[in-house]
Amino acid sequence: MSQTPKTPLLDQVARPHDLKRFSDAELHQLASEVRAETISAVSETGGHLGAGLGVVELTVALHAIFDTPRDKIIWDVGHQCYPHKILTERRDRIRTLRQKDGLSGFTKRSESPYDPFGAAHSSTSISAALGFAVARDLGGDIPEGLGDAIAVIGDGAMSAGMAYEALNNAGDLGKRLIVILNDNEMSIAPPVGAMSSYLSRLYAEAPFQDLKAAAKGAVSLLPYPFREGAKRAKDMLKGMAVGGTLFEQLGFSYLGPIDGHDLNQLLPVLRTVKDRATGPILIHVLTKKGKGYGPAEAARDKGHGVAKFDVVTGEQKKTPSNAPSYTSVFGDTLVELAALDDKICAVTAAMPDGTGLNLFAERYPSRCFDVGIAEQHGVTFSAAMAAGGMKPFCAIYSTFLQRGYDQVVHDVAIQRLPVRFAIDRAGLVGADGATHAGAFDVAFLANLPGFVVMAAADEAELKHMVATAAAYDDGPIAFRFPRGEGNGVTMPERGEPIEIGKGRIIAKGAKVALLSFGTRLAEVEKAAEALRAKGITPTIADARFAKPLDREMILTLANDHEALITIEEGAVGGFGSHVAQLLADEGVFDTGLKFRSMVLPDTFIDQASPADMYEVAGMSAEQIEAKVLNVLGISSIGAKRA
Amino acid sequence: MSQTPKTPLLDQVARPHDLKRFSDAELHQLASEVRAETISAVSETGGHLGAGLGVVELTVALHAIFDTPRDKIIWDVGHQCYPHKILTERRDRIRTLRQKDGLSGFTKRSESPYDPFGAAHSSTSISAALGFAVARDLGGDIPEGLGDAIAVIGDGAMSAGMAYEALNNAGDLGKRLIVILNDNEMSIAPPVGAMSSYLSRLYAEAPFQDLKAAAKGAVSLLPYPFREGAKRAKDMLKGMAVGGTLFEQLGFSYLGPIDGHDLNQLLPVLRTVKDRATGPILIHVLTKKGKGYGPAEAARDKGHGVAKFDVVTGEQKKTPSNAPSYTSVFGDTLVELAALDDKICAVTAAMPDGTGLNLFAERYPSRCFDVGIAEQHGVTFSAAMAAGGMKPFCAIYSTFLQRGYDQVVHDVAIQRLPVRFAIDRAGLVGADGATHAGAFDVAFLANLPGFVVMAAADEAELKHMVATAAAYDDGPIAFRFPRGEGNGVTMPERGEPIEIGKGRIIAKGAKVALLSFGTRLAEVEKAAEALRAKGITPTIADARFAKPLDREMILTLANDHEALITIEEGAVGGFGSHVAQLLADEGVFDTGLKFRSMVLPDTFIDQASPADMYEVAGMSAEQIEAKVLNVLGISSIGAKRA
Repeated sequence: MSQTPKTPLLDQVARPHDLKRFSDAELHQLASEVRAETISAVSETGGHLGAGLGVVELTVALHAIFDTPRDKIIWDVGHQCYPHKILTERRDRIRTLRQKDGLSGFTKRSESPYDPFGAAHSSTSISAALGFAVARDLGGDIPEGLGDAIAVIGDGAMSAGMAYEALNNAGDLGKRLIVILNDNEMSIAPPVGAMSSYLSRLYAEAPFQDLKAAAKGAVSLLPYPFREGAKRAKDMLKGMAVGGTLFEQLGFSYLGPIDGHDLNQLLPVLRTVKDRATGPILIHVLTKKGKGYGPAEAARDKGHGVAKFDVVTGEQKKTPSNAPSYTSVFGDTLVELAALDDKICAVTAAMPDGTGLNLFAERYPSRCFDVGIAEQHGVTFSAAMAAGGMKPFCAIYSTFLQRGYDQVVHDVAIQRLPVRFAIDRAGLVGADGATHAGAFDVAFLANLPGFVVMAAADEAELKHMVATAAAYDDGPIAFRFPRGEGNGVTMPERGEPIEIGKGRIIAKGAKVALLSFGTRLAEVEKAAEALRAKGITPTIADARFAKPLDREMILTLANDHEALITIEEGAVGGFGSHVAQLLADEGVFDTGLKFRSMVLPDTFIDQASPADMYEVAGMSAEQIEAKVLNVLGISSIGAKRA
Repeated sequence: MSQTPKTPLLDQVARPHDLKRFSDAELHQLASEVRAETISAVSETGGHLGAGLGVVELTVALHAIFDTPRDKIIWDVGHQCYPHKILTERRDRIRTLRQKDGLSGFTKRSESPYDPFGAAHSSTSISAALGFAVARDLGGDIPEGLGDAIAVIGDGAMSAGMAYEALNNAGDLGKRLIVILNDNEMSIAPPVGAMSSYLSRLYAEAPFQDLKAAAKGAVSLLPYPFREGAKRAKDMLKGMAVGGTLFEQLGFSYLGPIDGHDLNQLLPVLRTVKDRATGPILIHVLTKKGKGYGPAEAARDKGHGVAKFDVVTGEQKKTPSNAPSYTSVFGDTLVELAALDDKICAVTAAMPDGTGLNLFAERYPSRCFDVGIAEQHGVTFSAAMAAGGMKPFCAIYSTFLQRGYDQVVHDVAIQRLPVRFAIDRAGLVGADGATHAGAFDVAFLANLPGFVVMAAADEAELKHMVATAAAYDDGPIAFRFPRGEGNGVTMPERGEPIEIGKGRIIAKGAKVALLSFGTRLAEVEKAAEALRAKGITPTIADARFAKPLDREMILTLANDHEALITIEEGAVGGFGSHVAQLLADEGVFDTGLKFRSMVLPDTFIDQASPADMYEVAGMSAEQIEAKVLNVLGISSIGAKRA
């Protein structure tokens, strides 16, 4: 697939400390080798390529100058951490990235002491770095020691309020703290918002060819008493960094912008900062996502997330799809509906492609809002649009909706405003692992008064649920669906609204009823097939709604069967808990019911294929079958004889 | 209690439109009357006084110049909305503020069309105003119409990331939108953070006596093509507003600072903005919290929240307390523990007094961090301090912890970092109503792998739980407790760590077991007393832990009783759901168990006394008693005979 690149210097690096032996010229060479190794590794594993390539020089410079793991480098999001992993005692496993039992695609505390604070969600790094800086100054005691705290954060991540909250607090506390703003004008999608325009103006006014002066002049931008000499140089740099004032107004010293691919700038600037910084300092570094690998630089998404690929041609080896993705079914259906209803609008938090809203944005640009990495604002903004007579679809992954939870409660639910939540990446998500699992949304939404919570069992159901949400105007409504392809079911011509709170019976049977909520239905059907071969014919139902529950259907299932088993792609507290509450309230348990609720287990599940992850979770067809046999008191062997 | 003030002009105001008849001079007089009426009303009801007094002139000016409810005034938080309510067809009910069946203490959509977007939590107003502005421009259609969108937000609220996210998006979209920054240097506590210092510098450089020029010059700060004439005046004002650049860098026109108590400034500035604004504009208004009422101005908290009081003396009529508040037990215990352990530190999000950390902050200022209204940052900052070897107590009200939920999941739980969450205001909170209810924390925390979740049954238990959290270092741990006074139980000399996952049996009985989680235990004991009079002796247990559950105790209770009833001050999905999951997993339901889970009902409950609210929720002692009788199949009358 790829020839292993020649890496004579990198081969001498067992740990980051070894970089201190290299001359600056050798570090240049080392950076090239790290870049080649990154490309080679990702060509074999797939994963996040562009972000890592953009920070190769920065990674080398940081490890050459700072003393990790005593000094804490905190990579925001962590998409860009592969070069860091290569340099920090994980090169031998770098070709297991994002694989089952392999290295995580993100930084992860349990994986390495060089990852002092794991990430995956955006914009946490400044808060984390400040926490380490404070712990250091308070005498916190950990085996690795506590030195400098360095956050590396992208310009896209700066649109999140959390980053601002951290800057605001750090500027106030005044502790020594280093924030490196990695400005590549490209997070997952191009960044949006006024901050992004502001940053663009910053370097538009600082022509690239002048930047080398920055390194020499860096010292003059440092806080008193280190601002020495050369007022002229300082003024010149001040002029360059015309808008650095925004960060300065928040209490940071601002330094930059500098060329993040030029070690001749990075090394002296970082050395100066290490030697002399006192309070919080922001170093503005310009980089190019995908840098140094033609196919990534040329790609629209700068090689953000790639499949395995051929290193020479850059061609990705994507497996052909058998069915449309859930994401595209959502996006396409919304476009269809929007053609008929000009009140439909859409909100994404910096994920137009990931949420399937890219097509909507193209067709209806004035009705599509990319608010930046700003789920809190996005939810409340949607709520007010609903209050203003629009029909907003707020499309946020399950795991990221956690960022806007208070807004869901306070602005949407309490005011009973008809915001439509399109919750992608529900359940276990595969290579992105535990940090991206959509495990909690049903639990945290279904107990909110007035909410409607649906899960699609397949892509046709999803199409109907999008139509249901568009037609429903009586309060908030959410529909969840998983990452990946549908089941290949026949797609309806158009989505038809489903009656609110009505489930459906898929197959009538006896003794045991399997009540599915979401896309485990396919596994339930497989399990049922195996059970029928053993003489057990389960009833199968698709709940469709966790709220309001189809009380009549569920109580009938409970009354007509010896056992009732719920199955959902979520944690305890969600669908199964609501069913249990109903059954308890109605006294169904009083006289005995073999009730079981299959939920995600009480562990965070590491990355693997979704199928493998559900196996770990105990929710495969075989495991559902085993659960039925167990509940009915039939051993597997006995069942085969029956 | 207070003489009703003379209000000849206010008496002529049936609706805000009536203000348009008044001359500017009459508006001055009207403002005085609104202030007097506000003081008079709050003297009878108690409530938020200082914030409203600070915006009397602003409220009058806004309603005089804009056309509500077509134009949308969105009061951030809503503490300051009493003068607004007086002017918007609610004067007749203003003396029912915060009472059962009375006016809400906050803005509320269901209460009035003049409240286009309700609030209570901070920093949502800019997002909401932007949503209305966008809906207007997209042709949203609502009965009141859609005109200008005006957010009024305090300087404290500007420390929240959400406000920044909204500014960032609004500056980018460029729609006509008015943000009034109500800068009073005092939210609930004095504001903190770099933004706050920045604002102080802003007006430090703009001496108050020069401000009148601002009104005349306002027009010169408006966007092209309205920036006409007088470059000199503009430059002068630019010089004044030296730091307005921060907002300008985010795409806003900045105007100010102006004197928010001077209608001679407010009226012309607002008229100019109304006539000429095109894009987003921020008007920086300086006010004084508590303005115009001596006792409020003199108070440390500027009369933020007051009991009923005597208008002449300002003396508040607080009812004497019989027991220490839960808040103070937490705060005092933490101080005691911190004396013995220098790794203990504490984090509050702008609520040092409310969380009981004020004493800790006094004693250990270097270990206490008020991060501003910034729960997201506060949680992750705490997580990193834990990673750095400290023992952070992150003290956040249940309802506000919703703001940091993703950080709890992503930064604390997944990394299993020992952050101690002190969750005050758990359950129903009284006069603050539905928006402040701590209803969801158990549900959203207890399904997180590795979390320990406790609830204190009384103030002595709380003391032990603080000690338990301090001693526990194996992962995140949370303890919840309600607003208000304890039960008056004997307090232990010191807190002693409780064994993790161990509940306690309070009383042994038969037939029915009442399993309480939290402070409903007192009501359970009352119910049990009544039941004993009827010949039923329930077993009573205090679960202490929602996670990990005391499996042994719970399974024993289930096995030894005909009925098991859980009771908690929270919504479905929490403690009772975890118990149900355990019972189902263990097959306890298979052979029948009269299981019931008493949780908060599926409605948002409006303000009243906590006792009244729990009555509405169906969780009083009488209602618990009735539940037991019902479950045992005994009618109340029959029971009396038994």
